[in-house]
Amino acid sequence: MPALSFSLEKTDNLSVARAGTITTDHGQIQTPIFMPVGTIGSVKAVPQQLLKEQVKAQIILGNTYHLYLRPGMETIEAAGGLHRFMNWDKPILTDSGGFQVFSLAAARKIKEEGVTFQSHIDGSKHLFTPEKVMDIERTIGADIMMAFDECPPANSIYKYALDSMNLTHRWLDRCFKHFNNTPDKWGHTQNLFPIVQGAVYHDLRKASCDYISSKNATGNAIGGLSVGEPEPVMYEICQLCCENLPQNKPRYLMGVGTPWNILECIALGVDMFDCVMPTRNGRNAMLFTTKGVINIDNKKWEKDFSPIDEGLDCEWSHYYNKAYVRHLFKSSELLGLTIASVQNLAFYLWLVTEARRHILLGDFLSWKNEMVPVLKTRL
Amino acid sequence: MPALSFSLEKTDNLSVARAGTITTDHGQIQTPIFMPVGTIGSVKAVPQQLLKEQVKAQIILGNTYHLYLRPGMETIEAAGGLHRFMNWDKPILTDSGGFQVFSLAAARKIKEEGVTFQSHIDGSKHLFTPEKVMDIERTIGADIMMAFDECPPANSIYKYALDSMNLTHRWLDRCFKHFNNTPDKWGHTQNLFPIVQGAVYHDLRKASCDYISSKNATGNAIGGLSVGEPEPVMYEICQLCCENLPQNKPRYLMGVGTPWNILECIALGVDMFDCVMPTRNGRNAMLFTTKGVINIDNKKWEKDFSPIDEGLDCEWSHYYNKAYVRHLFKSSELLGLTIASVQNLAFYLWLVTEARRHILLGDFLSWKNEMVPVLKTRL
Repeated sequence: MPALSFSLEKTDNLSVARAGTITTDHGQIQTPIFMPVGTIGSVKAVPQQLLKEQVKAQIILGNTYHLYLRPGMETIEAAGGLHRFMNWDKPILTDSGGFQVFSLAAARKIKEEGVTFQSHIDGSKHLFTPEKVMDIERTIGADIMMAFDECPPANSIYKYALDSMNLTHRWLDRCFKHFNNTPDKWGHTQNLFPIVQGAVYHDLRKASCDYISSKNATGNAIGGLSVGEPEPVMYEICQLCCENLPQNKPRYLMGVGTPWNILECIALGVDMFDCVMPTRNGRNAMLFTTKGVINIDNKKWEKDFSPIDEGLDCEWSHYYNKAYVRHLFKSSELLGLTIASVQNLAFYLWLVTEARRHILLGDFLSWKNEMVPVLKTRL
Repeated sequence: MPALSFSLEKTDNLSVARAGTITTDHGQIQTPIFMPVGTIGSVKAVPQQLLKEQVKAQIILGNTYHLYLRPGMETIEAAGGLHRFMNWDKPILTDSGGFQVFSLAAARKIKEEGVTFQSHIDGSKHLFTPEKVMDIERTIGADIMMAFDECPPANSIYKYALDSMNLTHRWLDRCFKHFNNTPDKWGHTQNLFPIVQGAVYHDLRKASCDYISSKNATGNAIGGLSVGEPEPVMYEICQLCCENLPQNKPRYLMGVGTPWNILECIALGVDMFDCVMPTRNGRNAMLFTTKGVINIDNKKWEKDFSPIDEGLDCEWSHYYNKAYVRHLFKSSELLGLTIASVQNLAFYLWLVTEARRHILLGDFLSWKNEMVPVLKTRL
């Protein structure tokens, strides 16, 4: 079966922002794109129907670590993969579990073979190897599988970052070997994206980009950013990676970020993003809107009956008013969490769709420079 | 403006089940009907859109006590009533707060004037009088307002039940006087339904029905049932009340009940129901289906990928499978609460719609007798 393909439709004149289309067996994705995070088979508080109809999601992300622990591979296998289990017929990307093993799991030990860790749920012991993670992602049935990597802390010393990067590269070889020796599991083509590491060290990032590029994968990812480093450093490393990764393949910046982070990184040549921020912050009463950021808990919204966000082409953002959403949060009503999550995801999808439109129009950079301060405004 | 009207379309031959239509300024309600409980301006975990599209709710209930405390009348007033606040354009019924004052609030004292109580949220002191409750329900803008009553415990001795009933009747006079002296608040006609009390005592219930009927209200309610008395006693009192309330007005049995309770009470002549059971039990992993009751937490559903309920004409009941919903509950994912609530409410609405269909067909009693054991089945 044909692998994922990427057609580049336009590159901006004044930046290196790109508009393209990714084609998968579960449909097309117009880039730049934001992928809502469906941690454990559900984008938290958002029904699948609303992901399609209100958020207009084109692809979602699943977390290998979480799905492996719950419901577990036996259930996902019996269901015929995650698409069928959760009834989602658009593309799915899975991370490799690497980031969660390092951020959530207890008692982890890194060896050449892989990582042993204890579940954050019940303390049970597990081993993730590159081969095992490929098997898990095959079973989940992701359209885009991520390679198993080590994600070192932002403040890693050079020696640690170097050794870690080399381990990630050796694991990458094993990932590709196992991936190439195993068939697509559920009748659609699966793709493997490698991940650039190297912490904040330019020479390491450059070396990692070269190594990753040599795999000639259908797409490439930048990992290990937005893990505590200052924002300018993140942009600097992101730019370096974009300059050293293939032009003709989609570039995915993992786990980033704020609305302005996303626009800045689009300007640097990133095509794909994911982040828990819209859903997690939404559940904590922060609403991202086309006019700026709202803390809906704030008393100033108590009698503001205007729609949440008239700037979005999302029925829900017009249907519910600010005072009502504030009331739901103050009263701990579950509907508040769903409305906030839908608003924020619809906003993130609007943001990347607008970015794409302006890239195609040719005025992306001036639009981006106008938008960034608006996005940072506290309403 | 014309008040609420009720047209009786058919009464069953073998029972006294009735099919009718209630007309309000916010649209028609086909009876028998079940009203989802929107406690505090939200049917818990169910967005308004899904109430219409999936549940097919024709009217919802709001709790005066809860709305009075949060968001408070100042906000509801500023919003222009609850319909606008929550953006719900179908009919709303409000209870009088009586039940919550007696079941939730602290330090309540009953006097002739009304009831003083402390908020269950912040301990603040409040006074509900019949006049004040009418003002609150006017401000909420309910299409159907309930009279302020005292709801005595199921095990009340005769003397207490008698005194309580008489107090409820005196309060009813004050409710009607104040209701008749105040205008419809938001441009649509508001109606006041009185409530029969009298605990489990036949002579008191009969006397209360007579008193309540003398008010010639546009509809009448039966209160003080499903508060701890045995099921046969509930049916007995329900029957007595239906026999002694006007035939040509809708009869509303407050706070009842299980699916089989609803069918039995439809057979006795009840037209309207409300209950928190479908949403509350749903949030506790109990699913009501056309084949019986499911505890979705149970391991037996772990790999059952069949739809939740193929018997319902509700897209969601077909879209999500049992193993997936079990996984959501086991993982404490919010989506599980929404799916279970939608399923259970859609089921309750299906149940009353089917009852109506069989009343019109003329085979209600035999259908009801077949259904009751199915509804009680534990799957």
